[in-house]
Amino acid sequence: MRTILVIGIGAGNPDYLTLQAIKAMNRAEVFFMPDKGEEKAGLNAIRLAMLEQFVSEPRYRLVEFAIPSRRKAATPDYRDSVEEWRDKLEVAYQRMFAELPDDGVGAFLVWGDPALYDGTLRILRDMQAAGSPIAIEVIPGISAPQALAAQHQVTLNRVGEAVTITTGRRVGEGEADALSSAVVMLDNHQVFRRFAMDEAEIFWGAYLGTADEILVAGKVSEVMDEIDAKRREAQARHGWIMDTYMIRKPQAD
Amino acid sequence: MRTILVIGIGAGNPDYLTLQAIKAMNRAEVFFMPDKGEEKAGLNAIRLAMLEQFVSEPRYRLVEFAIPSRRKAATPDYRDSVEEWRDKLEVAYQRMFAELPDDGVGAFLVWGDPALYDGTLRILRDMQAAGSPIAIEVIPGISAPQALAAQHQVTLNRVGEAVTITTGRRVGEGEADALSSAVVMLDNHQVFRRFAMDEAEIFWGAYLGTADEILVAGKVSEVMDEIDAKRREAQARHGWIMDTYMIRKPQAD
Ligand SMILES: C[S@@+](CC[C@H](N)C(=O)[O-])C[C@H]1O[C@@H](n2cnc3c(N)ncnc32)[C@H](O)[C@@H]1O
Ligand SMILES: C[S@@+](CC[C@H](N)C(=O)[O-])C[C@H]1O[C@@H](n2cnc3c(N)ncnc32)[C@H](O)[C@@H]1O
Repeated sequence: MRTILVIGIGAGNPDYLTLQAIKAMNRAEVFFMPDKGEEKAGLNAIRLAMLEQFVSEPRYRLVEFAIPSRRKAATPDYRDSVEEWRDKLEVAYQRMFAELPDDGVGAFLVWGDPALYDGTLRILRDMQAAGSPIAIEVIPGISAPQALAAQHQVTLNRVGEAVTITTGRRVGEGEADALSSAVVMLDNHQVFRRFAMDEAEIFWGAYLGTADEILVAGKVSEVMDEIDAKRREAQARHGWIMDTYMIRKPQAD
Repeated sequence: MRTILVIGIGAGNPDYLTLQAIKAMNRAEVFFMPDKGEEKAGLNAIRLAMLEQFVSEPRYRLVEFAIPSRRKAATPDYRDSVEEWRDKLEVAYQRMFAELPDDGVGAFLVWGDPALYDGTLRILRDMQAAGSPIAIEVIPGISAPQALAAQHQVTLNRVGEAVTITTGRRVGEGEADALSSAVVMLDNHQVFRRFAMDEAEIFWGAYLGTADEILVAGKVSEVMDEIDAKRREAQARHGWIMDTYMIRKPQAD
């Protein structure tokens, strides 16, 4: 049976790699590398540098695959468009896995943790459920929210409280309005502005863990323009951006 | 100035250690080791084994500190009792840090990720805010929710959805009743039983990442008794237990 390793490589700093991830990297004979537009260069360069540094007896091949572009507009149903996109990827995966020997080991190097806002594992599980004879192994990795918390030296939860990890889309729809602590990923529209009114604090980070890291913290109302400006400038310079932030409401006493 | 490293060591598997954690461990001259009743033996043994294996030129000392017991009953205000407990720890920390040379480096080896349900970082930040001249560095680690997701081969969020990480106490008060996905930590009362009615699934794990790991997954209504039995049996055998689970509601269509 073919084994597919889903290896979390951490969200930026190569030193976020775990020993488990390094051991897994040394077992794979093929690495499946996503082709993802502008980010590709940056993130794949990090992946390749990791392989070079940590695979002790290199005998691996790289197999690139195209990430299909996601249908936009037309239908507002986000989930449908994700399903369609996933089906296309499944076909691409089938084709790639066929390149592995019958008992071969292939691997995906997933940014951050495979359990957080990443589609790889779900596609593999769907393939398994549909009868694809593959064995899966998942290796957790340091995620962007964890990198954010570490760099700002804050905890994700407050004493005895909960923390919700969510998306810019959902926060824009009001999901986080009543939450005490929320970590927001995948926000292209700076929806943190909606918290400017209620004394909320923001801990914001871009390119966390990398040499380009930017951190800003403070009251939303006081730092939101600074974040906007830094975000725009960085995005223009790099051609892409990855940023994450935590919103923390004043403690209800 | 003294530097205090808050090193996340992962939530069970020694291979969850990151390269960043190992580098940090090699900088510390003193490790502060908690004395935590029954768990102590188990968790400190893992910490010591890590130091032995990964510190290349051992020149460190161990300094033990007692974790004050938390005031129970009497007042139902959880936060007050935490504050009091934290004050006592702060005094203990002050005393320990005095054992470091003026520019020395000390370290806490925090279970899992320091950002999740751990008090160490907060105490250090309070001390800093109160004028204690210490530099802090935080190293993220693989947390129990991530170990849980990896071992069950599930994602923490569903496509486009949020995930809330919370405590047994809060779930018992109904917090998660309306949530799509919730990860529950620190549950001593098996409050997952409250989800037996609504077709929810549970992904449960104890001693994740260790040789004693136990995994159970299925509909809450179908596996809750099995979890109860396994939990009780394991707790009796080890003298303590650490378990985490994710509750996932049927997808709202
Ligand atoms: C598709 S998700 C992947 C998340 C990843 N699996 C993880 O565990 O962090 C991409 C989002 O993660 C966040 N992100 C990932 N890496 C980041 C970094 N180094 N700095 C800031 N945000 C990051 C951003 O919010 C970005 O929009
Ligand atoms: C005080 S909290 C510390 C959490 C830790 N900082 C982390 O990031 O996972 C302790 C709780 O974490 C969970 N936990 C920690 N390690 C675990 C493991 N190996 N298996 C299952 N649950 C674990 C349990 O819910 C336990 O009650």
